[in-house]
Amino acid sequence: MTGASGVGKGTIRHAAIPDLGEIHYSISATTRLRREGEVDGVDYHFLDRSAFRALLERDALLEHAEYVGDYYGTPAAPVDAALSAGHDVLLEIELEGARQVREKRPEAVMLFIAPPSVAELERRLRGRGTDGEAKIQRRLERARKELRAVREFDYLIVNDSLDAAVTAFKAVVRAERLRASRLGDEAEAALLRAT
Amino acid sequence: MTGASGVGKGTIRHAAIPDLGEIHYSISATTRLRREGEVDGVDYHFLDRSAFRALLERDALLEHAEYVGDYYGTPAAPVDAALSAGHDVLLEIELEGARQVREKRPEAVMLFIAPPSVAELERRLRGRGTDGEAKIQRRLERARKELRAVREFDYLIVNDSLDAAVTAFKAVVRAERLRASRLGDEAEAALLRAT
Repeated sequence: MTGASGVGKGTIRHAAIPDLGEIHYSISATTRLRREGEVDGVDYHFLDRSAFRALLERDALLEHAEYVGDYYGTPAAPVDAALSAGHDVLLEIELEGARQVREKRPEAVMLFIAPPSVAELERRLRGRGTDGEAKIQRRLERARKELRAVREFDYLIVNDSLDAAVTAFKAVVRAERLRASRLGDEAEAALLRAT
Repeated sequence: MTGASGVGKGTIRHAAIPDLGEIHYSISATTRLRREGEVDGVDYHFLDRSAFRALLERDALLEHAEYVGDYYGTPAAPVDAALSAGHDVLLEIELEGARQVREKRPEAVMLFIAPPSVAELERRLRGRGTDGEAKIQRRLERARKELRAVREFDYLIVNDSLDAAVTAFKAVVRAERLRASRLGDEAEAALLRAT
C-alpha cells in the first residue's frame, strides 16, 4: 500500500483489518528518531545507522529508501515467516520501495491510496497541524511525484469518503484471495471429488 | 461468470447485483424451447434455428456453443451498448463460451463459481428434482470438465456458503473497478489538481 502522508492509509488499515482475517502488518525499520508516543516494535523498529547498514549489507531488507536524511526499510524475515504461515502481508511503503518489492516479488499486489486531489491533501496536512511549511511542501512534492506513477500500481483507491475507501480496501484483499492462479493442487482435487 | 448448472450462479447474482450499481446482465439467445414460466427477453431471447444462424453469419455473437442439440449465444450489440454507457456487463456462460469471449475481449474478467465438490453438486442437482438421471450425469460430466479448466479463470469462488459467495462476488466486481490501469487521463489530472 502506497500513498501520501495524510491520505488516510493508517485509518483505512485499522478500520479494514478486523474484517479480513489473517493479515500481517509489516513494521518498517527506520533510523529516524522515535517521536513522542511512538513505540519501538509497534510503530517502527528504531535502529541506529550502523544496525540499519548491517541489514542492508546482509540483503535482509525487501526494500529501503532514504527520506529527508533518514533510512526506512522492510525487514524480509517477518514478511517471509508470515507468508509461510499462509497469512497475507501488508506493507505500507513509498513509491521507490514499492518498485523494489515488485522487482523482488512480482506476485505482490500493488495498491495506491490517493487523495481526491493534491489540493485536498494540502488542506488535510495543514489541518493536522503537525508539520511546518517546509515539510508540507516536501510532502506535497512527493505526493505529486507518486501520483504521476499511479498506473504502475494494480489498484487505485481514491480516499474521498472513509467508508467507501474501507469497503474498497477490503474488496481488493478479498478479491486477490480468490485468484484462481492461487488454487493449489489439493484444493483442485477437493473440487473434483466425486464421493 | 462460469459454473455448473446447480452451483448457484443465479442466486449469487440476484443477491449481489442490488449492491453493485450499474451492471448489465447479458441475456443469452437460444434455440431451445421456452420452458413453463420462462419469459422471452428476460430468461433468454428465444430464437428459431434460422434466426440464430443469421446472427452467427453476421458475426453478431460474442460467443456461442451447442449443448444437447441446441444453440446458445451472447448477442454482442447489447453488451457493447452497455459498455459504451460505462456500465459493467455480466455474462453467464459456459467454458467454451468464456474462452471465446477472452479471445475476442482480452480485458474481460473471468470468474468461476465452483461447488465445494462434484459430490456436493450431485446432491444439489438431485435435490432440485428437475432433471432426469441422464441429464444429471451429463451435467456432472460437464462440471468435471469445466473444473479441470479453472486455472484459465481470473477468480474462483467456491459456493460453500451463499453469504460468503455473495460477499466474494461483490469483492471481485468492486476490486476490478479499482484497477489503476482503468484510470483515465482526466481522472489522473483531477488527482493532481493543486487548486
